[in-house]
Amino acid sequence: MYPRVAIDAMGGDNAPGAPVSGAVMAAKALGSSVCLVGDEERMREALGRMGGYPKELVTVRHAPGVIDAGEQPVGALRRKKDSSMVVALNMLKQGEADVLVSAGNTGALLAGGVMTVGRLKGVDRPAISAVLPSRKGGGVLLVDAGANVDARPEHLVQFAIMGSVYAGRVLGWNPVSVGLLNVGAEEGKGCETVKQAYSRLKGRSEFVGNIEARDVLDGDVNVVVCDGFVGHVFLKTVEGTAGMIFHSLKAELADGALSKVGGLLLKPAFRRLKKRLDYSEYGGAPLLGLSKPVIKCHGSSGPAAIMNGCRVGVEFARSGAINAVLQEIRTPD
Amino acid sequence: MYPRVAIDAMGGDNAPGAPVSGAVMAAKALGSSVCLVGDEERMREALGRMGGYPKELVTVRHAPGVIDAGEQPVGALRRKKDSSMVVALNMLKQGEADVLVSAGNTGALLAGGVMTVGRLKGVDRPAISAVLPSRKGGGVLLVDAGANVDARPEHLVQFAIMGSVYAGRVLGWNPVSVGLLNVGAEEGKGCETVKQAYSRLKGRSEFVGNIEARDVLDGDVNVVVCDGFVGHVFLKTVEGTAGMIFHSLKAELADGALSKVGGLLLKPAFRRLKKRLDYSEYGGAPLLGLSKPVIKCHGSSGPAAIMNGCRVGVEFARSGAINAVLQEIRTPD
Repeated sequence: MYPRVAIDAMGGDNAPGAPVSGAVMAAKALGSSVCLVGDEERMREALGRMGGYPKELVTVRHAPGVIDAGEQPVGALRRKKDSSMVVALNMLKQGEADVLVSAGNTGALLAGGVMTVGRLKGVDRPAISAVLPSRKGGGVLLVDAGANVDARPEHLVQFAIMGSVYAGRVLGWNPVSVGLLNVGAEEGKGCETVKQAYSRLKGRSEFVGNIEARDVLDGDVNVVVCDGFVGHVFLKTVEGTAGMIFHSLKAELADGALSKVGGLLLKPAFRRLKKRLDYSEYGGAPLLGLSKPVIKCHGSSGPAAIMNGCRVGVEFARSGAINAVLQEIRTPD
Repeated sequence: MYPRVAIDAMGGDNAPGAPVSGAVMAAKALGSSVCLVGDEERMREALGRMGGYPKELVTVRHAPGVIDAGEQPVGALRRKKDSSMVVALNMLKQGEADVLVSAGNTGALLAGGVMTVGRLKGVDRPAISAVLPSRKGGGVLLVDAGANVDARPEHLVQFAIMGSVYAGRVLGWNPVSVGLLNVGAEEGKGCETVKQAYSRLKGRSEFVGNIEARDVLDGDVNVVVCDGFVGHVFLKTVEGTAGMIFHSLKAELADGALSKVGGLLLKPAFRRLKKRLDYSEYGGAPLLGLSKPVIKCHGSSGPAAIMNGCRVGVEFARSGAINAVLQEIRTPD
């Protein structure tokens, strides 16, 4: 059976246009069936603008409500049972879909995932992961990228297991190496939580020890584990630093005629680099630790990012990664 | 009285050459007296290569031992009473110097500072701070940059007070605004420690609320408070991201003849930008919360960075910042 994708067509800054186009692109490219969940009239309108789509693969499910990006997650989930996100989560729960893709409110998707679909047995806290580009060309999977701002050592161990299974089974990375984000490379460094996580991870074959933030983007370690506070700071610092450098280069290039010529010649190179650094390009971020696959796309996702999210979701659903985590996490360490 | 500087002449990767040259440069530029502390023979040798220096300002104190960068701080401090760092710390304690500048082992300098010079009354944990360049051209002071990996809410409040006094009195920034590094801008975001720190900082006039990592380098907030784990991750992520971008740009520039020409034209612009991002250029990082001024220079400091450290140290000593912190921190909030 080919995985069926439910799409929260009202989630994200560009909804329903981007989710609808992205879903149609995914249906065409992957041959998978996609169900658009949201305001039927608006989705039909967006579909009408597509100029033809595979009708046997693309279906529509009406859900009039919308959970906005700024809403308090749990309250919104309770109040808005008819929202696109809640209806799509229920489809996943009831087996009407095999994977859910959403660019909507992250906190609501996470809380809704736990409340509706449920945690995987043995996982205390589901995590968000993000794939970042690395200097060596491969990628780096960061777990947790922001779901759990107060994590205990056992949570970090679970993140490591979930991350390494996902990296190996879904992303196809081989070998998988797991590092603990820390303030120094030597054992014994770091805060209490991280030190305890280190001693629990020590026996695992894929664990290579601590990694400093400076070295993460090198890509020597392909799964990097941290709590969600630190993971969020890491991701946003990468964004902020890249933004500052591009801004400064622009200013430098506006200075002096020779530089201006150089800048013009370099524009395509800059554009390629910016694209490479834009981790939303890599498609969705899997929520790891739920009993079914849920993919979070960036709120600003365009059609291509949504299609990438669907592709990742389909691979996630087919990979058997969730069962593999279930088995590994049950094994006492 | 003009502050007298003690220099740990054996600290750092380029010792004693860089500390000796940097100290002589500082004596010439600032007119302050500097005492070089370390292996006398090697310091005299380095001085001999200087081709003249103001002998009335530059003195030498023999201390044969050296604490290395990799040594365990407390053990090294106990064992090596004759080391340049311990002797210099004692000079500061006994009033033979007014400020200490060192590019040596950070942990040892911090622990030695607490053990020898002592904490400021009301400060539980001294912090390291770092000045970063900002997009707007001013700077951003990050406290704590790595001293306290497990900080409690009251420590973050103390970092905020020490940072704002330092920014105002020593760096001369006006107005000073303090932000709490967090995963979102709204009140109520973050881990327990940060939430509690927020509610304690709320009443302070210079406190502007949470700041996300992405916005730190913009410079809208000039003092950014976090625990040492997060501060270290922030700093090293800035370094790692900048390194990756420069590496990728280089690779892009090697691609195609037009890009190569562009790259050559841009070399000076790149060099200027790299220099601007190199926060060690900004001179030393003050250890805040000790009862006397201690400045930590980057381990890889050259003469210019050491001279900057001396300049910052002299300003720190003259500013009255330590007394101002003492008074502010005693005031119940």
